[in-house]
Amino acid sequence: MTKICGDASNFAMSALRGFSLIHHDLVRLVRGGVLRAKPGPKGKVAVVLGSGSGHYPAFAGYVGKGFGDAAVAGDIFASPSTQAIKSIARQADLGGGIILGYGNYAGDVLNFGIAADRLREEGYDVRVLATADDVASSDASTRERRRGIAGDLLIFKIVGAAAEAGLTLDEVEEVAHRVNRQTCTFGVAFDGCTLPGETEKLFEVPKNRMALGLGVHGEPGIDEQDVPSPEALAKILFDRLLAEIPHEAPRRVAVLLNGLGSTKQEELFVLWNALAPMFENAGLTLVAPLVGEYVTSLDMAGCSLTLTWLDEDLEQYWRAPVDSAALRHDKLVGDGVADLAVEDEATIVYMRSATAAGRQGGACVADVMENLAKMLAAEESSLGHIDALAGDGDHGQGMARGSAASARAARNAANAGAGPATVLATAADAWADRAGGTSGALWGEGLRAFSTALDDGRLPSAEQLSQGARNSMERIMLLGRAKPGDKTLVDALVPFVETLERELAAGHELIKAWMEGAEAAYQAAQDTRNLLPRMGRAKMHGERSKGHPDAGALSLALCVRSVGRDLRA
Amino acid sequence: MTKICGDASNFAMSALRGFSLIHHDLVRLVRGGVLRAKPGPKGKVAVVLGSGSGHYPAFAGYVGKGFGDAAVAGDIFASPSTQAIKSIARQADLGGGIILGYGNYAGDVLNFGIAADRLREEGYDVRVLATADDVASSDASTRERRRGIAGDLLIFKIVGAAAEAGLTLDEVEEVAHRVNRQTCTFGVAFDGCTLPGETEKLFEVPKNRMALGLGVHGEPGIDEQDVPSPEALAKILFDRLLAEIPHEAPRRVAVLLNGLGSTKQEELFVLWNALAPMFENAGLTLVAPLVGEYVTSLDMAGCSLTLTWLDEDLEQYWRAPVDSAALRHDKLVGDGVADLAVEDEATIVYMRSATAAGRQGGACVADVMENLAKMLAAEESSLGHIDALAGDGDHGQGMARGSAASARAARNAANAGAGPATVLATAADAWADRAGGTSGALWGEGLRAFSTALDDGRLPSAEQLSQGARNSMERIMLLGRAKPGDKTLVDALVPFVETLERELAAGHELIKAWMEGAEAAYQAAQDTRNLLPRMGRAKMHGERSKGHPDAGALSLALCVRSVGRDLRA
Repeated sequence: MTKICGDASNFAMSALRGFSLIHHDLVRLVRGGVLRAKPGPKGKVAVVLGSGSGHYPAFAGYVGKGFGDAAVAGDIFASPSTQAIKSIARQADLGGGIILGYGNYAGDVLNFGIAADRLREEGYDVRVLATADDVASSDASTRERRRGIAGDLLIFKIVGAAAEAGLTLDEVEEVAHRVNRQTCTFGVAFDGCTLPGETEKLFEVPKNRMALGLGVHGEPGIDEQDVPSPEALAKILFDRLLAEIPHEAPRRVAVLLNGLGSTKQEELFVLWNALAPMFENAGLTLVAPLVGEYVTSLDMAGCSLTLTWLDEDLEQYWRAPVDSAALRHDKLVGDGVADLAVEDEATIVYMRSATAAGRQGGACVADVMENLAKMLAAEESSLGHIDALAGDGDHGQGMARGSAASARAARNAANAGAGPATVLATAADAWADRAGGTSGALWGEGLRAFSTALDDGRLPSAEQLSQGARNSMERIMLLGRAKPGDKTLVDALVPFVETLERELAAGHELIKAWMEGAEAAYQAAQDTRNLLPRMGRAKMHGERSKGHPDAGALSLALCVRSVGRDLRA
Repeated sequence: MTKICGDASNFAMSALRGFSLIHHDLVRLVRGGVLRAKPGPKGKVAVVLGSGSGHYPAFAGYVGKGFGDAAVAGDIFASPSTQAIKSIARQADLGGGIILGYGNYAGDVLNFGIAADRLREEGYDVRVLATADDVASSDASTRERRRGIAGDLLIFKIVGAAAEAGLTLDEVEEVAHRVNRQTCTFGVAFDGCTLPGETEKLFEVPKNRMALGLGVHGEPGIDEQDVPSPEALAKILFDRLLAEIPHEAPRRVAVLLNGLGSTKQEELFVLWNALAPMFENAGLTLVAPLVGEYVTSLDMAGCSLTLTWLDEDLEQYWRAPVDSAALRHDKLVGDGVADLAVEDEATIVYMRSATAAGRQGGACVADVMENLAKMLAAEESSLGHIDALAGDGDHGQGMARGSAASARAARNAANAGAGPATVLATAADAWADRAGGTSGALWGEGLRAFSTALDDGRLPSAEQLSQGARNSMERIMLLGRAKPGDKTLVDALVPFVETLERELAAGHELIKAWMEGAEAAYQAAQDTRNLLPRMGRAKMHGERSKGHPDAGALSLALCVRSVGRDLRA
């Protein structure tokens, strides 16, 4: 929905004016449209594009060297007037004739058609190009009824480059009709758009549904289904276009994956993952494909896939330099596929412990880490639920992911014969790496600090474990800057360490001391119910967490309990 | 809301992979981030950027020549791991030292800080840059607590250019801290964002309200108010930043008006209209300002304004060539303001009628057009309501706008002494120009066709008027391709013309014949209640218009009635 709107009836022209201000190195504002700021050479064919507004960067963003000479802008989703088209075409004329390019819609056909007739009466040589790439809008047998949608980007880019290359009007017109015939688009929509100044959507797509073949002004689609997976969506788009390519057509294709407005670039990238290999598998070579927003429909959610099969000169025009707000390239390069085999980390060479006790200690640490991971996997969902009250609910997931990676790394190190310090340090790094976020870093650093109290040559002693726990606590408090009472894991960690130390100092044996510590930690974690978070993101939603323990404190308590059970075993 | 998602827990990495596929001429995917595809020269300072994901094009889109050497990407809104930062920094290193750039958030400070320490232990010379441009996140007196938001684009661009220019690590670090101190951002949000895989927003902004100073992860803002006009919003953003510029600071500024995700480019352009003059009026010179999406927050609605005051070398680095997915310029040019005085149409020289009768006839046509315009202004809202049932409700507006322009043009021509044909032709062109859309074109062409039956030398005769009406009908039916029964203005136009002709042929005088025609038209317009539209956009929503007359047919009937009243007078 349009929030920065002002007078809605003037929105389109106000947006065009602001565009012209910021891009006045590229365009010059005239009544009803924009002209290239630096006109092309005398005698060049002038490429004048147009449509209703609401499709930015179409078409003002297409004006510049190697692309359009001018764009005529109507009101939102409404054809520009015949007068505006005539006036701008006259100003864009360089003496080499004029191509009027527009989508094949009733209003545009009418206004551009009349303008062309009038301009011809005035002595201009004018040719028209009504783009018709939308395969959903009519069958291949009635291509002339098809609408123009995102294919406009490819068609007009190629026509603009042909004109820039100095072709005659007849030649540019031939290229225009050829690329129009060789371009097809299929699109889907997840949600409707809202006209500026309105609060209701122009049309709605039911929740979790997807409309196939819906037009860029909300023209009805041809089908509807549940929103599919990215892979299934890629197949729907790709198969529909593949069926359009004639057998004898060239196998090199320019491609555009276009976002309609509120579908984010990240979503298009996710979809491209699934799409790119389909071209390869079908024997099609991608030529400088584009992913982004090039023909939008206000804030409509959805995307479309466009494909142009390229003979030699169309490829040359597609790759040619272009300098406009929408496209700026010295040369369109790349093929949109790559060998993305990501190298794994270098194989770690573990220091093998010199003693059997050290190797046994390493194995014990790996056992502890594996049991921790099992416990945290079981608790993942309940920790996530508690965390969602104060934060974004990813704590359970992070702990499960970190501990699982940690357990694998620990086992690898132990299998290589590493001692307890090395095994734990390895586990610490793996945890931090895979858990991510603040808590992942704190756990990794805490475990690493713990490991510095151990010795690779022997089984950990009670003294070492106690020292390790204190090291962890100090490191975590230093890095995280939390104090007891802030409703963080520190609330459970401090009583654990202090109880452990006190019990050992009182002469109790390790297992009892550890379990006492664990119980103190658990109790303290439960007591965080009464606290409000004072730090980090949790502070934002603190009120919601009232009456619930802190997820970080609780998971720490569960972990020391789990370790305690292993010590006993 | 994310519709193309797949496994939500893998969304960030899947998007990064797709980005790397399509932009593999610029970047190379590695575990947890991307490196420049073509590394810089040996000895160059490596600029390694990072943050959680969900902010595209930040930061993978910042990797390329003249900008970042690498980007580390965490999960959505979560800091990357220390391990990932270390691993990518090592791979990005060119032997000239490393700058780690990130926003000043707890998780990032922790992970990048630890990574820096570890890398230093390994022998790398590492400097850190925690961006802190968000003026809403802390007072100027506690700048070090401020968060980094859209200022990242300007700060990192300038740091990247300084590194590319071959500065030493000490020098790049100095530039980095300087530009960080000289950059400030203030943002507003209209609506919250939704994490991939979730259906509920992370936070909500109440309807028609605007949160001031809200963070890019939904951190609470400092105030809330109703959504203001573009001018008032511009003032809020601008004033807040102006207050940050020290008295002695240079008066040349780089500026970014940034969209947060679902705020469209057109809205930003509308806002820029109001913003650009404020800089000028405050004595600030804009240096290559940018308007667009550079630091987003998933699908959050809102925008921010960033300003960097530039001394000579910062300006040089800001303007320096850059080749990345987010920014691609040989040189950043333009100053974002322009003299946009749009020339009005060339003054029309009207043909003065040679006869008094012709001049009188021209004045009569102007009277008729003025009365038409008055009537259509009065009917604007009711015609709009009827049209909204079948279309987008702009019919009343278009008719009122077209007829008003038409009346003005007719009066000008009549005042200049033009005869009826010229006055009506002038009125026709003005109508088509200002009404816009399909119906504007049809009315303009219809009136123009009517004018060809008139004669500038005398008062229009009954025969001429009847011929004019037929000319209109034929032209409109030819262009619009509508037939009676399609629920368009043709349904009223045909009975009008046929009745007029029949009545005149039967020997009735003009006024009676015309009024009979008008009544036939009105009756036929009412009868369109029973029809379903078969053409154009109205066809889409046809069912809703059942039981209501067609707006176009009704307005035609009202117009011929109005003309009839003038004939009688």
